[in-house]
Amino acid sequence: MSTVVLAYSGGLDTSVAIRWIKEKYDLDVIAVTIDVGNERDLESIAARAKKIGAVKALVIDGRDDFVRYFVWPALQAGALYEGQYPLATALARPLIARLLVEVARQEGAVAVAHGCTGKGNDQVRFDVSINTLAPDLKIIAPVREWSMTRDNEIAYAKEHNIPITVTNASPYSIDQNLWGRSIECGVLEDPWAEPPADVFAWTLDPDTMEAKAPTYVEITFEHGIPVALNGEELDGVTIIERLNKEAGNYGIGRIDHIENRLVGIKSREIYEAPAAVVLHAAHKALETLTLSREQTRFKELVANEYARLIYNGQWYSALHQDLAAYVQSSQRFVSGTVRVKLSRGNCAIVGRKSDHSLYDHALATYDSGDQFDHNAALGFIKLWGLPLSTQAQSQFLPSVGLEGNLLESGSSKVQES
Amino acid sequence: MSTVVLAYSGGLDTSVAIRWIKEKYDLDVIAVTIDVGNERDLESIAARAKKIGAVKALVIDGRDDFVRYFVWPALQAGALYEGQYPLATALARPLIARLLVEVARQEGAVAVAHGCTGKGNDQVRFDVSINTLAPDLKIIAPVREWSMTRDNEIAYAKEHNIPITVTNASPYSIDQNLWGRSIECGVLEDPWAEPPADVFAWTLDPDTMEAKAPTYVEITFEHGIPVALNGEELDGVTIIERLNKEAGNYGIGRIDHIENRLVGIKSREIYEAPAAVVLHAAHKALETLTLSREQTRFKELVANEYARLIYNGQWYSALHQDLAAYVQSSQRFVSGTVRVKLSRGNCAIVGRKSDHSLYDHALATYDSGDQFDHNAALGFIKLWGLPLSTQAQSQFLPSVGLEGNLLESGSSKVQES
Amino acid sequence: MSTVVLAYSGGLDTSVAIRWIKEKYDLDVIAVTIDVGNERDLESIAARAKKIGAVKALVIDGRDDFVRYFVWPALQAGALYEGQYPLATALARPLIARLLVEVARQEGAVAVAHGCTGKGNDQVRFDVSINTLAPDLKIIAPVREWSMTRDNEIAYAKEHNIPITVTNASPYSIDQNLWGRSIECGVLEDPWAEPPADVFAWTLDPDTMEAKAPTYVEITFEHGIPVALNGEELDGVTIIERLNKEAGNYGIGRIDHIENRLVGIKSREIYEAPAAVVLHAAHKALETLTLSREQTRFKELVANEYARLIYNGQWYSALHQDLAAYVQSSQRFVSGTVRVKLSRGNCAIVGRKSDHSLYDHALATYDSGDQFDHNAALGFIKLWGLPLSTQAQSQFLPSVGLEGNLLESGSSKVQES
Amino acid sequence: MSTVVLAYSGGLDTSVAIRWIKEKYDLDVIAVTIDVGNERDLESIAARAKKIGAVKALVIDGRDDFVRYFVWPALQAGALYEGQYPLATALARPLIARLLVEVARQEGAVAVAHGCTGKGNDQVRFDVSINTLAPDLKIIAPVREWSMTRDNEIAYAKEHNIPITVTNASPYSIDQNLWGRSIECGVLEDPWAEPPADVFAWTLDPDTMEAKAPTYVEITFEHGIPVALNGEELDGVTIIERLNKEAGNYGIGRIDHIENRLVGIKSREIYEAPAAVVLHAAHKALETLTLSREQTRFKELVANEYARLIYNGQWYSALHQDLAAYVQSSQRFVSGTVRVKLSRGNCAIVGRKSDHSLYDHALATYDSGDQFDHNAALGFIKLWGLPLSTQAQSQFLPSVGLEGNLLESGSSKVQES
Repeated sequence: MSTVVLAYSGGLDTSVAIRWIKEKYDLDVIAVTIDVGNERDLESIAARAKKIGAVKALVIDGRDDFVRYFVWPALQAGALYEGQYPLATALARPLIARLLVEVARQEGAVAVAHGCTGKGNDQVRFDVSINTLAPDLKIIAPVREWSMTRDNEIAYAKEHNIPITVTNASPYSIDQNLWGRSIECGVLEDPWAEPPADVFAWTLDPDTMEAKAPTYVEITFEHGIPVALNGEELDGVTIIERLNKEAGNYGIGRIDHIENRLVGIKSREIYEAPAAVVLHAAHKALETLTLSREQTRFKELVANEYARLIYNGQWYSALHQDLAAYVQSSQRFVSGTVRVKLSRGNCAIVGRKSDHSLYDHALATYDSGDQFDHNAALGFIKLWGLPLSTQAQSQFLPSVGLEGNLLESGSSKVQES
Repeated sequence: MSTVVLAYSGGLDTSVAIRWIKEKYDLDVIAVTIDVGNERDLESIAARAKKIGAVKALVIDGRDDFVRYFVWPALQAGALYEGQYPLATALARPLIARLLVEVARQEGAVAVAHGCTGKGNDQVRFDVSINTLAPDLKIIAPVREWSMTRDNEIAYAKEHNIPITVTNASPYSIDQNLWGRSIECGVLEDPWAEPPADVFAWTLDPDTMEAKAPTYVEITFEHGIPVALNGEELDGVTIIERLNKEAGNYGIGRIDHIENRLVGIKSREIYEAPAAVVLHAAHKALETLTLSREQTRFKELVANEYARLIYNGQWYSALHQDLAAYVQSSQRFVSGTVRVKLSRGNCAIVGRKSDHSLYDHALATYDSGDQFDHNAALGFIKLWGLPLSTQAQSQFLPSVGLEGNLLESGSSKVQES
Repeated sequence: MSTVVLAYSGGLDTSVAIRWIKEKYDLDVIAVTIDVGNERDLESIAARAKKIGAVKALVIDGRDDFVRYFVWPALQAGALYEGQYPLATALARPLIARLLVEVARQEGAVAVAHGCTGKGNDQVRFDVSINTLAPDLKIIAPVREWSMTRDNEIAYAKEHNIPITVTNASPYSIDQNLWGRSIECGVLEDPWAEPPADVFAWTLDPDTMEAKAPTYVEITFEHGIPVALNGEELDGVTIIERLNKEAGNYGIGRIDHIENRLVGIKSREIYEAPAAVVLHAAHKALETLTLSREQTRFKELVANEYARLIYNGQWYSALHQDLAAYVQSSQRFVSGTVRVKLSRGNCAIVGRKSDHSLYDHALATYDSGDQFDHNAALGFIKLWGLPLSTQAQSQFLPSVGLEGNLLESGSSKVQES
Repeated sequence: MSTVVLAYSGGLDTSVAIRWIKEKYDLDVIAVTIDVGNERDLESIAARAKKIGAVKALVIDGRDDFVRYFVWPALQAGALYEGQYPLATALARPLIARLLVEVARQEGAVAVAHGCTGKGNDQVRFDVSINTLAPDLKIIAPVREWSMTRDNEIAYAKEHNIPITVTNASPYSIDQNLWGRSIECGVLEDPWAEPPADVFAWTLDPDTMEAKAPTYVEITFEHGIPVALNGEELDGVTIIERLNKEAGNYGIGRIDHIENRLVGIKSREIYEAPAAVVLHAAHKALETLTLSREQTRFKELVANEYARLIYNGQWYSALHQDLAAYVQSSQRFVSGTVRVKLSRGNCAIVGRKSDHSLYDHALATYDSGDQFDHNAALGFIKLWGLPLSTQAQSQFLPSVGLEGNLLESGSSKVQES
């Protein structure tokens, strides 16, 4: 019989889907559970899949690949969607899509399936990635296709003896992996409502947590990639896990954002991303030391573009490769150490150093030792300002007079002493 | 005798300059002290100018114009230089330049003078603005021209009976106005050194301040301009003063940045800008509700450009006018209220509402009442992903196979349950 | 009975649609034929609509509005999609959509209908515009909905006594209005094939046309809008008509482009747009004289964005309004005259002048009279180059030596004389 | 005795400079003449240098390096300054600067010298490049330093027995190399004046040249680099030389531009660049076939940035390396052949093909064989237009009504048939 590879999370939706796909499409389900740092008991999830009727249940440890090939490049790029969201969920989707395709190839499956709804970004990320990597594979998205409410699903599960654990259902929709946790729905759908305490799981409330002295963390980067904490060389997964814990305990990493989804609507999202927030801040600080002004300016464009394509499900695109080439080039000298102070609700950069620093004390100092050529400024200013005075004389001043100046700027009160 | 209009701060440099200009250029000095919220005793400063030898000493209250014509437009634009600096000093310079020119015209002066060094950005901002508004006026910059050290200046002052108050000279160079305070020099010139406590004057240290419950502030905007705090309508100067005080008392508004100066060097700058930090965050939050995704995306470009031209002394430029027209258009519906939670070291946006909100609960909700068309997603995804799958088939897949994928993404460990 | 307002062109598709809509939807059809310079006999088209069964047939002269509110703003913006396409068809769609909605309101119709296929950009432009202006109106797109081939349609027409004039059907799909003519399909679908002669209707073949002396045309602009030809003040429609004719007779205005459609595919398009090509070139030339370097740089971004949103059917968007505000500001001083030389296949700008020119002969000349300060250059260069030499010393030179330089640049052969 | 390496062209300025430098700086001059395709008799130039007093005269054939490391990357990038200028002179400067530095190192010189004035872009390009590559070398720019008029120089030459050939001095200032010829000064300084015939040397006047049938040229690219003409594999120098000749004979490649110089002024420049014009057009056409819409969109930003940095003398910058990495990535599949039709004054792209074309006939065609999913369009349009209708309902329609629409668009005349 033909098979379908299902991305299986162990939750209600995909548990029901194992059975529903069999009924609707007459396909045997191979359940694949991929670990990208979601903190779940993978073995028992796999066992449940088989119990429900999956012909095979695979578990894949994707954490190392996730960090190396998805998280680090996004960090190097400085990719924050709309300046806010570190893209945790969005970054995991193309990896999962690719692993689904690989398993489908190995197992000779004719389709892949995922549990996304018809309203979010994740369906786009999955479908587009799968279609790009394997246009011949059929895509099944049960939740998008069936029209069951949550109660319908529970009834369906009971009817088909599908073991589910629905106790006090969370009012929220949650996704999490190493790089962050995202929460939506429930009261959060009111953008005027402050997120209640039960929304947060990774971060203490900075206002109610007990008193605690600040901690300093020194993060070392090589070519824009974190390689050590406080001088201790660590693999990527460990660095992120430690920072999630440490910064989370200071209440760092909460993000509350009204976000523009690709599918044309705005949604209110809460994120917890302690490691991502600290690492992005530290990385950016190191770049202020090691990138030129012009590199900084243009990389901002690249970063925004990079974030958008990740968010919009375009990971496997040629534009991505071009932007990635840019980013890699830009990181050649982004090596050094950043000193971060963690305190209640706050992550402050307090020091940065690099063997390739462009900060030149001899040029910057106002003390003795100043090597900056103060006379050069005069010529510079003259040519820098030349286009402005030319334009003012030719266009603005003749037509409006000094009074109705270039840009209105009021009439301050003068008083003689 | 011919006169020069000097921007007079009351400090050592410009006090010495009153006398030095007279000696060097044989020009009578008209001292102008402009209040942009610098918290100084203007009357005694003016008196000192006359004592030193100024033929006239004027005081101008520029606070209202500063906020209305310089600060608010920059806030509407979202102008933060390099994503960090709210541009307090940079915004005041074109106003001061303009007032100097106006006084020069009224008084029939032949020159204007300022106290900038030959290394900073401010000389550029002054010179370019003055030259643009009044190309016929000579510009004198004594500190850039003379080659006196601080000690030389003090000696010069003593020799010429110039009353100065040099007690324990601050190791820092400081400028401040309503929109922020900037501190540089001294130990701050080492980018690895954490700023010592004596650097800060407007903000308490969030880590050592005494315990304090969070406060909520509701900020109301009309067309992107703050008009009320907690429902109380207030003028701009008062709004900024109150927020500086209130947020400063929570330790909010400290910025530590390695900055790219226009004159080609990097410098380490510390800023305190409690009101600016809170207002920028609130304004941006309101925009997430009232601007479309595409407006948000393009306005980011405008904001960066706007910030750069302010920083680089190009206020009186045609590009500025064009960008300002864009910004004004974009703010038409940026009206509403943002709820901000101030707590130790932290300013969090916890609510936002607007009569013109683009957040549509009926489209966003996952509850009953959902009006989003889930079926539309399928067609959307199909066309959205079409270019990617076309390109993968024509370019990537044939040449590299699935294994050597579009972008390398490792080989995760698969384990069968 | 309920009515639908149909955009009626008089061609096969919309003629069949009058009847088909009645059958399928049981709606009476009000045919609206809108003149945007398509050179058709509008009266006989309207008569045909009624003959086929339309309950009413309206003719609207939209040419003046088209030029004033759609073409001129796009010209001012410098909007060329992908640097090539002057957007003739794309600009007419939002006007037509709006007129359809207006008629629907006046007539109390419940729907509007258009003849677009399911593959092109025009369906997007119509549907999005109509939905934005009147979300309550149903949209019917017969050609997208039925699955008739051309032959099916002809049979349907015969069967229902629909008068059509299908003689030797053109192998091409053509749309045209004042601002240009677009041709696709047939042999043009092979991007390697040179367009055959029968593709072109507005332009002579520059290689086979008879010899002809060049002509000079002086085009006068006010605020970026053409107002006179050779000193004769003319309305916009006339200016475009004359230039289409005159430049077309020199073989000017042919464009052959592989274009990226919004719906995810590439298509090969041939355009004839003599007036658009000449006016865009002239307008740009006038801008080189009247905009500053920085205005020119940023307006390029605006132009590309503006072109994309027109192409992509987003005319009635807030982003459009913001960009339009930018463009209007930028055109304040784009007034003056451009001298264009029309010759076989070529349109060359040979002169430009403006009362607000930023070209300053006294600064530009190398003759006596040169007022440029050559000494200023030294200081300028020093600071301009400072970041590059700082970076080379800190990053490139130490790690790679002069030999393996910043960017590889070979080893030229040195020979001693 | 210490030596200086002088970039020697053989003209009046640098001939006088050999002697002047000796007098003024007491340095022995090593004359270096670099061939970047300037069509000069290098041997006799070198001989003249020695005759005037150079202690050594070197000739370097830099043509191959020029094309390979400077021209081709700029072509791949699509670098046209302000959309017009192919950057011939600007591209040669960093190569020449680098060769001067290399010779200075080999010869142990303490300085390098060039013949630029204090007003142009070339001094910036030379000085910045030299300072970046060799900050210890002194830079001497005699023409910028001395204040001799042309007549003074001639007198100086006569006085010092410097052999010069000043017959009928050209009224123009000219620079040329393989990639183009630039002409300025004289009557060209009037932007209203049409360039007279004697300005042009590489291109026939298309209006007066004798009748001539069009020619087709097929240009083959590999990774964005031209490798063959009409199927004949050729080296880069030969390809450019042939196209300069062939296209020049059709009057192709004339550019008349008002340009924004880095030093703050506008200048009128005439360029002749037949090969550059043809190759840029062909390269761009191949990209329309092989780059995705998103790649095309972003590469436009890269191209403009790339052009500006070349123009502005920032070749040896880190930003350049980052942009170059982007460009190289983007060119991976820009391989194929473009068919160009050369006719009088006109270069038209009439065909393009590639093994990696993204043009998919099965998707594009309107004939049978169409594989495009027309139904998908409906869902796509729905989500694509959703933000616009949401915004219109929330912001525009309520406040202004349909009449005062989003964007003013007039009131066309309706007429009932």
